[in-house]
Amino acid sequence: MKAVVRRGRALVCAEVPNVVPTAGQVVARTLACGICGSDLHAVPHLDLMVEMGRRAGSSGALDPAADLVMGHEFCAEIVDYGPQTARRFALGTRVVSMPYAIGPKGPELIGYSNRFPGGFAEHMALTEAMLLEVPNGLPSEHAAMVEPMSVGVHAVACADLSGRPVALVIGCGPVGLAVIAALKLKGVGPVIASDYSPARRALAEKMGADIVVDPAETSPHERWDEFDVPGTLARFSMARLSGADMRSAVVFECVGAPGVLQSIIEKCPPLAQIVVVGACMEEDRIVPVLAINKQLRMRFVFAYTAEEFAQTLHDIAEGRIDVSPLYGGTVGLSGVAAAFAELATPEKAKIIVDPRLS
Amino acid sequence: MKAVVRRGRALVCAEVPNVVPTAGQVVARTLACGICGSDLHAVPHLDLMVEMGRRAGSSGALDPAADLVMGHEFCAEIVDYGPQTARRFALGTRVVSMPYAIGPKGPELIGYSNRFPGGFAEHMALTEAMLLEVPNGLPSEHAAMVEPMSVGVHAVACADLSGRPVALVIGCGPVGLAVIAALKLKGVGPVIASDYSPARRALAEKMGADIVVDPAETSPHERWDEFDVPGTLARFSMARLSGADMRSAVVFECVGAPGVLQSIIEKCPPLAQIVVVGACMEEDRIVPVLAINKQLRMRFVFAYTAEEFAQTLHDIAEGRIDVSPLYGGTVGLSGVAAAFAELATPEKAKIIVDPRLS
Repeated sequence: MKAVVRRGRALVCAEVPNVVPTAGQVVARTLACGICGSDLHAVPHLDLMVEMGRRAGSSGALDPAADLVMGHEFCAEIVDYGPQTARRFALGTRVVSMPYAIGPKGPELIGYSNRFPGGFAEHMALTEAMLLEVPNGLPSEHAAMVEPMSVGVHAVACADLSGRPVALVIGCGPVGLAVIAALKLKGVGPVIASDYSPARRALAEKMGADIVVDPAETSPHERWDEFDVPGTLARFSMARLSGADMRSAVVFECVGAPGVLQSIIEKCPPLAQIVVVGACMEEDRIVPVLAINKQLRMRFVFAYTAEEFAQTLHDIAEGRIDVSPLYGGTVGLSGVAAAFAELATPEKAKIIVDPRLS
Repeated sequence: MKAVVRRGRALVCAEVPNVVPTAGQVVARTLACGICGSDLHAVPHLDLMVEMGRRAGSSGALDPAADLVMGHEFCAEIVDYGPQTARRFALGTRVVSMPYAIGPKGPELIGYSNRFPGGFAEHMALTEAMLLEVPNGLPSEHAAMVEPMSVGVHAVACADLSGRPVALVIGCGPVGLAVIAALKLKGVGPVIASDYSPARRALAEKMGADIVVDPAETSPHERWDEFDVPGTLARFSMARLSGADMRSAVVFECVGAPGVLQSIIEKCPPLAQIVVVGACMEEDRIVPVLAINKQLRMRFVFAYTAEEFAQTLHDIAEGRIDVSPLYGGTVGLSGVAAAFAELATPEKAKIIVDPRLS
């Protein structure tokens, strides 16, 4: 079958072996598959990503030197059943799925597996038990965004929202935009969004951010006091002594570059929660005593639960999350390399790959 | 009155002005005051501590270049009433108190205030409304340990204990020992304690640690699987797939030196909580993506609440926390400088200052 293959540190269109489903799997034709920021990162830095996975204790099934077909944000159509399947969906059913498959060493991530090709290929082998039918009428390119939106839903679910927090989202790429949508869905407000890019700030507004800030002009941390969040230890102490009504702060780090976490630690209000969603792959520097003086909480989050993924599908299909602002067009396999280059600039949030196109 | 004064970067015995209570304060004679690790640090590095407080947004009332009388872990006896006091305790009543006083710029920490001398002096001005009477019979040198034990109680209170976590305490100085005592009080177990010092490991056992580890011989992180905590991402995934009964991990960082946090991030189990109690004043390095891959939670904690402080007094007075293993002797003011030097080695946990002694 045709696929886009990461080979060496380049993306090439190539023929790869047809998918052979193992027990419990179906064969699915890819209809739409989003390009993720981690895919952009993986082209030059897959070896580092694998090394970090190994250091974190993953099974280590991925060989960064071997061919890899990426794509883990997909909507697909069932075209065949493998052995030991219950056949609970008719052929032709459109489905989404969390991108996991069970290999001989344990779970593998579809799109980051040498064994299970991702959605930048004509077909995938998907685990039948994990399939979710796409509700009628939801376009495939929107269904493909269930996966990245679930990342935001999970990040917000990991935050403690009991103190009526005011939310600040640092970085309005696809992850930050998903967090904004999830915050609005939960009724959190105001949501302040910060990004250097005018295009991304415009997208943040479309996804529901109440206030957008260009950090080159104003620090988003200057505005806490407007919303009854004491911005410094001294103000916090005085507010507590006076019995004032205080709100808390929750800051979502959606950039993943060195220095961002420390800038949040340095500037955020006392008792703030920091939810770290952006994956900084490099060594980063922090000053722990500042986090101690402010009694900060940090929560490092990854992916989502099965329940969050399923709920997000329905929230999108039933109009509670509008993903249409994120959609930046569709390309065929031959357009993937150019789309990767285009996504390195901040103009578009999400480009969808449809391997049926030339 | 006589006091030990931090002057320049040295400790000297000196005469300082008598205490003049402001509205709502009493004059209290110091009976016992513990030496804290932060006091040891402050002698050479007070300017850095003040700078970090300023960067965290504190009121900035402390001038590191001026004379300072330290001592914030005290038990004292009321000897006079200041203006506008309710006189709710008789003269001679033994009391403890959180070490806060209200200055013109807001709350100041007694023992880290140029205005309010701490317990390394004959007398202190204490806020009447914050005083707690020492229950009959609790020795003053044990009552003085309410403050450091409250730090451990608060750290444990900040942890999420809902997942029957197995606890690991890294560093068994006074902070780590307080955490161990608080964990045992809450019924958490097993409690694994790790320290390079044989003396501190012996103290950890006395405070109730179930297992003590010399990290020079074995990594404490090698033992998670013994207690049904999947130690790696791969084991975690397999355990979840098989529906195995899993426990979580909570790791208390009680060292506060560069590199310790990253060593925990690198070695701890997936989904672990890290409670950072040790205050690393220097810039530290972490690799955020490892914390993301493992979905770690970090909670940076400081001090305690008024409720925790009061409860800890009663837990000590009523025998639920035994602080006697921490007690390493009493010195007069003239012995303070030597006691600071002695505490720089790990043999003793706590030396008490009694300014009534010569």
